[in-house]
Amino acid sequence: MSKHLPATVGRRARGADIDARGQLLDAAVGLFAERGIANTTVAQIAAAGHVTSAMVHYWFDTRDQLLEAVVEERLAPLFHAIWDAADVVRSAPLELVRGMLARMFEVTGRNPWLPSLWLREIVNEGGLLRERALRHIPLGQVGGFGQNIARGRSEGEVNPDIEPLLLFNSILALVMLPQATAKIWRHINPTVTFDRATLQRHVTALLMHGIAAPAAAAAGRLQHRKARARP
Amino acid sequence: MSKHLPATVGRRARGADIDARGQLLDAAVGLFAERGIANTTVAQIAAAGHVTSAMVHYWFDTRDQLLEAVVEERLAPLFHAIWDAADVVRSAPLELVRGMLARMFEVTGRNPWLPSLWLREIVNEGGLLRERALRHIPLGQVGGFGQNIARGRSEGEVNPDIEPLLLFNSILALVMLPQATAKIWRHINPTVTFDRATLQRHVTALLMHGIAAPAAAAAGRLQHRKARARP
Repeated sequence: MSKHLPATVGRRARGADIDARGQLLDAAVGLFAERGIANTTVAQIAAAGHVTSAMVHYWFDTRDQLLEAVVEERLAPLFHAIWDAADVVRSAPLELVRGMLARMFEVTGRNPWLPSLWLREIVNEGGLLRERALRHIPLGQVGGFGQNIARGRSEGEVNPDIEPLLLFNSILALVMLPQATAKIWRHINPTVTFDRATLQRHVTALLMHGIAAPAAAAAGRLQHRKARARP
Repeated sequence: MSKHLPATVGRRARGADIDARGQLLDAAVGLFAERGIANTTVAQIAAAGHVTSAMVHYWFDTRDQLLEAVVEERLAPLFHAIWDAADVVRSAPLELVRGMLARMFEVTGRNPWLPSLWLREIVNEGGLLRERALRHIPLGQVGGFGQNIARGRSEGEVNPDIEPLLLFNSILALVMLPQATAKIWRHINPTVTFDRATLQRHVTALLMHGIAAPAAAAAGRLQHRKARARP
């Protein structure tokens, strides 16, 4: 499931054309992430992909076909790369989350356009890939993830205040939003040198242990209990 | 600092007009959050605020003046409500974070339009309030927050893998993104009944302790150390 055959939408490409068509899709996702789909012309995509506009029109009769191919051949395989390896039935909850995190950072490292495209065109109201992309979310796996966390909670492995159905959303927010908005933060504070390895370490620590240092964790938990015990 | 005088931009309103002008700004932020600024007309704002389009034009000569008033009189006071009470110099790091969280949930509870407007018009590339809103971020407090966390880290209170300069970004992502995107999640899984109190409990738990249950935390940390110790 993690490898999709190319050319499932629009005209099929043969031989060397397969590379050119793939380059074109790579150019398209890069531009869409940087400028937004609505602000990108076919001529710009063609130029960035080193082909003629005529070739783009030959492969994709319509803009819709191009967007469909971007989702089928560029986005969906990444959803699969993140979810397919998750054993939501047998993994211990903490290992499940650790594995998801590692794959999400691996995937965004290899496809640095993903967080911006996700924010602009899927998360946003009016995002032009939202409906198409949501169809490719592996709902069975997402549901199984929630069940795994719920099971871990009832078995005492997961913090009882963690909400199983909100956790994947939280992970997505922690991993994707800072990568999608790195430009703003650099604008506010140019001394912040954003790098993916630091973010990964930070997000992993946050999810696994929260902000408290191991040594201070016990004291923190005690205070927390006192705070919750107030009427 | 947390109360701004009304009518700092555009024509001043007097007497009963102050209420009408305030209602208009409330209507504007609601529509901007729901439909986006680019998709909202003056006529729609006037109708939602129960005034005539002529009154809108009287108070705000230009669309720019209206946007400036929205930022000055609706957004900036909320930034202050979140940041002004933070004692970034003297608070213990965990209490500082707990206080920020409580105020962020309090502010988004009273102003449910805020997360969508934040996502659409500030976070987004091309967001029409971005530049204006960024000018109102209390940079001194944000910097002090980072220093507080860094100090907590060097004093052993904060997890050494937490990155002080990324933490506020993480908190913002955890609190705001799920509220701004609640619609998508309901679309994917209609059984998720999203409520703010559950999100607050979940995010607070995540930040304070991570996903591991207190009982399993020690074992989890041990595994974590082993994983990190691998060559």
